[in-house]
Amino acid sequence: MKKPFIFINSAMSLDGKISTSEKKQVKISNEKDMERVDRLRAESDAILVGSNTVAIDDPKLTVKSERLRKERVKKGLPENPLKVMVGSIKEIKFDSDFLDYGNAEKIIFTTEKEDSEKIVRLMEKARVFVLGKKRVDLKKMVSILSDLGVKRIMVEGGGTLNFEMLKEGLVDEIYVAIAPKIFGGRNVPTLADGEGFKEGGIVDLELIDIEKLDEIIVLRYRILA
Amino acid sequence: MKKPFIFINSAMSLDGKISTSEKKQVKISNEKDMERVDRLRAESDAILVGSNTVAIDDPKLTVKSERLRKERVKKGLPENPLKVMVGSIKEIKFDSDFLDYGNAEKIIFTTEKEDSEKIVRLMEKARVFVLGKKRVDLKKMVSILSDLGVKRIMVEGGGTLNFEMLKEGLVDEIYVAIAPKIFGGRNVPTLADGEGFKEGGIVDLELIDIEKLDEIIVLRYRILA
Repeated sequence: MKKPFIFINSAMSLDGKISTSEKKQVKISNEKDMERVDRLRAESDAILVGSNTVAIDDPKLTVKSERLRKERVKKGLPENPLKVMVGSIKEIKFDSDFLDYGNAEKIIFTTEKEDSEKIVRLMEKARVFVLGKKRVDLKKMVSILSDLGVKRIMVEGGGTLNFEMLKEGLVDEIYVAIAPKIFGGRNVPTLADGEGFKEGGIVDLELIDIEKLDEIIVLRYRILA
Repeated sequence: MKKPFIFINSAMSLDGKISTSEKKQVKISNEKDMERVDRLRAESDAILVGSNTVAIDDPKLTVKSERLRKERVKKGLPENPLKVMVGSIKEIKFDSDFLDYGNAEKIIFTTEKEDSEKIVRLMEKARVFVLGKKRVDLKKMVSILSDLGVKRIMVEGGGTLNFEMLKEGLVDEIYVAIAPKIFGGRNVPTLADGEGFKEGGIVDLELIDIEKLDEIIVLRYRILA
């Protein structure tokens, strides 16, 4: 199997936070940056998010620009990339935007410890894969997505999923939009959470691009093996 | 009183961390960036750090370049700026680099709850101000420093002090050197920790400079009132 190309896209405050201490969604991005994100989505086959992100932010994850959606269709692609959620299904609502908004196909990767009744109900709206006893095996997940024809995956957080994907060595590139704000907070979600990397395991990056979109700086890095 | 000009300088991983989950000091900076930091120190009257930073990293906080030290002396300044520590004195060692390295004058700001015997012993090596019952009143601290002739203060962390200084509205500018690394970790010190800002209290910044020092990006922001 050829591994799909996988990249993380995230917006954060200058101090690395992806939300505030109130866990509220605060506007981090701006108009130009949202257009950039929309283009990245339109160029992807699947958009991957963690279950916490769906529970808290419930992002739509669709391509906003009609022009970009039409371009996809012209190329023989579905209007919107696949929406993929990974993790617990406990918090996901049946009328969430993740499941209901737009015409994207939905896939959920979850574990054996989840409620089977809810799994069955979710199957009405999404394909559900049960992978692993307590944690989803991310490498297997990527392999399944690859088998489904996915060549390019955009990871849109949150901090735990970003960390786990990096830890598994699955990420090729990362885009970070830095907003001119400081959120602060000892226990606030950051770009990469989890248990953290130990000496020797720290992820090294190579800067490949800097872009200034008005007040927002977008840094693009390649992940070094 | 004219408030001194106060700026934060910090180096962090791309995900906003100022150390790893092992709390070990990892090299974040590079040669050119260290020269930049040395120039900033040489241009300052006082270098301010929190007591955790002294306990964990025990930074020397002196000007490394002999040329820059000589330039200071030519201007009638001491070779090194004042070293200032704020917070608890519990962890500071009598033979720490903060107290012993270089010929800088030392000042410690601490609270009434600290051990008075240790305060007296520390007075052999530093001026000690006891300000506040449980927390040092940072505004009063800045006012005292100003009375001592300090016009320019460089804050060198850590995350708690950075946050508190921002919260008190005492900071004018911030420099952040972003290293091409991801440390990860849910409970790892970040550029700004503390309890975090709530909606309405978020610190807004204005980007004033981007500098690329080899693989390190240095962003400079003005803090908006």
